[in-house]
Amino acid sequence: MAKKLSIISFSGDFDKLTAVFTLATGAAAVGYEVNLFFTFWGLNAIKKKQGRSFSGKNPLTKLFGFFMGGLKVAPVSRLNFWGISPKIFRSLMRKNNVATLEELVEAAKVLGINFYACEMAMHVLGLEKEDFIPEIKDVLGVATFLKLADDGQTLFI
Amino acid sequence: MAKKLSIISFSGDFDKLTAVFTLATGAAAVGYEVNLFFTFWGLNAIKKKQGRSFSGKNPLTKLFGFFMGGLKVAPVSRLNFWGISPKIFRSLMRKNNVATLEELVEAAKVLGINFYACEMAMHVLGLEKEDFIPEIKDVLGVATFLKLADDGQTLFI
Amino acid sequence: MAKKLSIISFSGDFDKLTAVFTLATGAAAVGYEVNLFFTFWGLNAIKKKQGRSFSGKNPLTKLFGFFMGGLKVAPVSRLNFWGISPKIFRSLMRKNNVATLEELVEAAKVLGINFYACEMAMHVLGLEKEDFIPEIKDVLGVATFLKLADDGQTLFI
Repeated sequence: MAKKLSIISFSGDFDKLTAVFTLATGAAAVGYEVNLFFTFWGLNAIKKKQGRSFSGKNPLTKLFGFFMGGLKVAPVSRLNFWGISPKIFRSLMRKNNVATLEELVEAAKVLGINFYACEMAMHVLGLEKEDFIPEIKDVLGVATFLKLADDGQTLFI
Repeated sequence: MAKKLSIISFSGDFDKLTAVFTLATGAAAVGYEVNLFFTFWGLNAIKKKQGRSFSGKNPLTKLFGFFMGGLKVAPVSRLNFWGISPKIFRSLMRKNNVATLEELVEAAKVLGINFYACEMAMHVLGLEKEDFIPEIKDVLGVATFLKLADDGQTLFI
Repeated sequence: MAKKLSIISFSGDFDKLTAVFTLATGAAAVGYEVNLFFTFWGLNAIKKKQGRSFSGKNPLTKLFGFFMGGLKVAPVSRLNFWGISPKIFRSLMRKNNVATLEELVEAAKVLGINFYACEMAMHVLGLEKEDFIPEIKDVLGVATFLKLADDGQTLFI
């Protein structure tokens, strides 16, 4: 049976999302079954519309949609310097031949990593399955996710 | 033997505490043994006095007690907007029939989830067992917690 | 076979690094094999030059080196108050006979805890093995770390 790595991807920060996808693709590359469960700010990583947009069911969720944006505007968790830092990191990654966040997400898709979205967070933020990229395999609650993650390593990032 | 989920609840942020109690109650609801180990900022979630108060043994811990407050004043980890965001989230949760943080904490008590407080963090912050809600089962060190968490999933949030 | 605790030490925050080393030394003290995998901001904890310095291969990494500094200037993740809070915590720890962060790091070395540095993050930040304390056992990628962490508890902090 394949070893398993499951990650609850809670953060919307550029650096933490990079950690999620680096761990996920690294594990998948050596044969792990990998489950990514996106919740709260993490849902930004899998939105169809990457970039700031007023999407969502009501004015408040529209507002959060705008401020949260997506991968392209994800801030760094520390020393963000009004968005300059993520740009610097991207440039350093390219210069040093390290995969950028967008490349890692593409790699995750190719490697067959399982993407799941958190049902409760979607309710709170007024998001629907159609708001996400088609690679989202399913919308899950906690109990189902725990069952998937059983007998493997689970991280909260 | 029941499956086990243990969470080191380190953060005092509204969104992360919501994640802790959503995971905990979701797991308990499907029969997991759940252990919550509150440490550092997380101790705010289990303080008797919820809200800002100058509690603690010495002037410095009083000051932290005031700034940290409790569940009712817990900030969101991103885009807090001077405390407006947690209010928006609460309203969204109520509107969308998702349990609020306070309801999740009550559910956790009813579901028999084990609450533990971190001995070391209590020493540093000048907090006593009496400062916490009576549901706190015990005050533990790392070694005892690890023993309780053994053979289950463990998350740091 | 010894039980195992592995921690991905991602954060550079004073309070989170304290959590890493408290868990690590607490586990090692009761016989656990402990693996610490330092990545991103966490690499600050194991830099030879503790304090702000313009180290690194190129101007951008020098700049980050300066802003990130090391253990001595690590900020608290919340309520940092321009660096006053870490000083208060240090004083509270000393007063209450709790080991300070620097003492915990020394204890970790004595207890034979395994220190590893993340290859990818080093590439991005332009850091070399020589920039770190000699206790760093190896520079690893994700796959090798996951293999080391197998069959134990793994935390992301």
